[in-house]
Amino acid sequence: MGVIIKGKPVADSITENLINEVKDLRQADIVPKLVMVRIGNNESDIAYQTGAMKKCQTIGIDTEVKEYDVDISQDDFIAEIEKLNRDSSVNGILIFRPFPKHIDESEIKHIIAKEKDVDCFNPLNCAGVMENDNAGFPPCTPAAVMEILNYYNVQLAGKRAAVLGSSMVVGKPAAMMLLNANSTTTMCDIFTKNNPEVCSKADVLVVAIGKSRLIGSDYVKDGAVVVDVGINVDKDGKVTGDVDTDKVMDKVSMITPVPGGVGSVTTSVLAKHVVKACKQQSQAKCLAD
Amino acid sequence: MGVIIKGKPVADSITENLINEVKDLRQADIVPKLVMVRIGNNESDIAYQTGAMKKCQTIGIDTEVKEYDVDISQDDFIAEIEKLNRDSSVNGILIFRPFPKHIDESEIKHIIAKEKDVDCFNPLNCAGVMENDNAGFPPCTPAAVMEILNYYNVQLAGKRAAVLGSSMVVGKPAAMMLLNANSTTTMCDIFTKNNPEVCSKADVLVVAIGKSRLIGSDYVKDGAVVVDVGINVDKDGKVTGDVDTDKVMDKVSMITPVPGGVGSVTTSVLAKHVVKACKQQSQAKCLAD
Repeated sequence: MGVIIKGKPVADSITENLINEVKDLRQADIVPKLVMVRIGNNESDIAYQTGAMKKCQTIGIDTEVKEYDVDISQDDFIAEIEKLNRDSSVNGILIFRPFPKHIDESEIKHIIAKEKDVDCFNPLNCAGVMENDNAGFPPCTPAAVMEILNYYNVQLAGKRAAVLGSSMVVGKPAAMMLLNANSTTTMCDIFTKNNPEVCSKADVLVVAIGKSRLIGSDYVKDGAVVVDVGINVDKDGKVTGDVDTDKVMDKVSMITPVPGGVGSVTTSVLAKHVVKACKQQSQAKCLAD
Repeated sequence: MGVIIKGKPVADSITENLINEVKDLRQADIVPKLVMVRIGNNESDIAYQTGAMKKCQTIGIDTEVKEYDVDISQDDFIAEIEKLNRDSSVNGILIFRPFPKHIDESEIKHIIAKEKDVDCFNPLNCAGVMENDNAGFPPCTPAAVMEILNYYNVQLAGKRAAVLGSSMVVGKPAAMMLLNANSTTTMCDIFTKNNPEVCSKADVLVVAIGKSRLIGSDYVKDGAVVVDVGINVDKDGKVTGDVDTDKVMDKVSMITPVPGGVGSVTTSVLAKHVVKACKQQSQAKCLAD
């Protein structure tokens, strides 16, 4: 019988460290600050924003929300982001996506300053994930996956990993991060034939496909660690993961729950990135002075 | 018995298309131009440069070589690259690496203009490989691997691929390009345990480890297509690949030779990138006028 590995202790551990770090920073008159930028009023964006604000408040990170009407022009939106780039009181910028259709994401992603881009929107940070550049910012969700694996002492070096799902926000960066942690990583997606066979070779299986309870025991190796990134809402309104936990419980050694797994760690990772950005920026400022 | 799939027909096919394309461009008074930038006199750089110049000449691409003393300063070198970025007659820039120790590659890579960066030095182009951005430039070597697979009609969608080697110039981008071609791709390197078992599951095996003839038949699935990226010089001065071709010949369906395989396609890919860059830039100029 596998063990449910919750996100809360991981998040608490990150939070506790950050509280101490921010205390030190504030004593030196350095106050980390996150600005969240949102166009329109998407419910799940607002829910994430609320969670992130609460987390930041606990830690001592200042937050500000910039809300824009859905009809803001591309140029005005760019000007707003550039203002935040220049504002030395702002250390981290999170921009909610997707955008309304008239906003060209492929241009915007280059505007956000790399060093304030705490959720890997700028391609320079995507490249950093591939290059294993520790100074950059990976996306918060795959970074949360790695935090969980690290917290629960899951060995990665020399192990087989599989990532199911190949998105730019989870699958691809997660695969690169697992490879960078020296695991032999297989990237699977909807084009994979005989997915259960491929996934069931993995010591560590990361699932991010967005299909409620699709992954059964045939996908899982005996003793595997399973990280379920999916957050789906069942027809009866229940929040479910991509993995059918009941069915794999006998086979796994550890599995993250949904809710209460990866999703409960992401805002802590976001806060960690803001504090890291703040330290990098104040160090750069010291060197420049 | 497997078939040796040579690079020459692939290179010839690319070259032939480019000759026609460049003829059309020149008739419109557009002349593609590649500048190769070199610090010092590394022999293999000069060999590559000579091959690239010859290829470009055949196609009708102008070339220029910028040679700098090994003691050029970081600032002077940056100024030279920025001059090339601004020079509208230059469409593609290839910068030979590694640099002398006093030159900071992590800064230089951001200087080269993304749209002239024909061998994926700028991280923006690395991110483009991950994002499957067809407007960008992947590194020439993994792009040559994909050209070979495409030329010989190797099916990738739904197939298993393995990449042995996880460098930023070959392994990682090759894995991403195979994934983007919808193959289920496993990334293996020196940390992989039981590498033969892992690799022998692959329908397509790309080897880029730089160890002469290390890969024997235990690494190869029956009927697999093997692409050998390695170029090593044996103790008796013979050029060898990473694969022990004789030993795997009975198992593979197709295998690239060394020499005469991937290496003979890279300069054609480089030329293809220069022509693509030239077209993109003249189109952008038209739109701006």
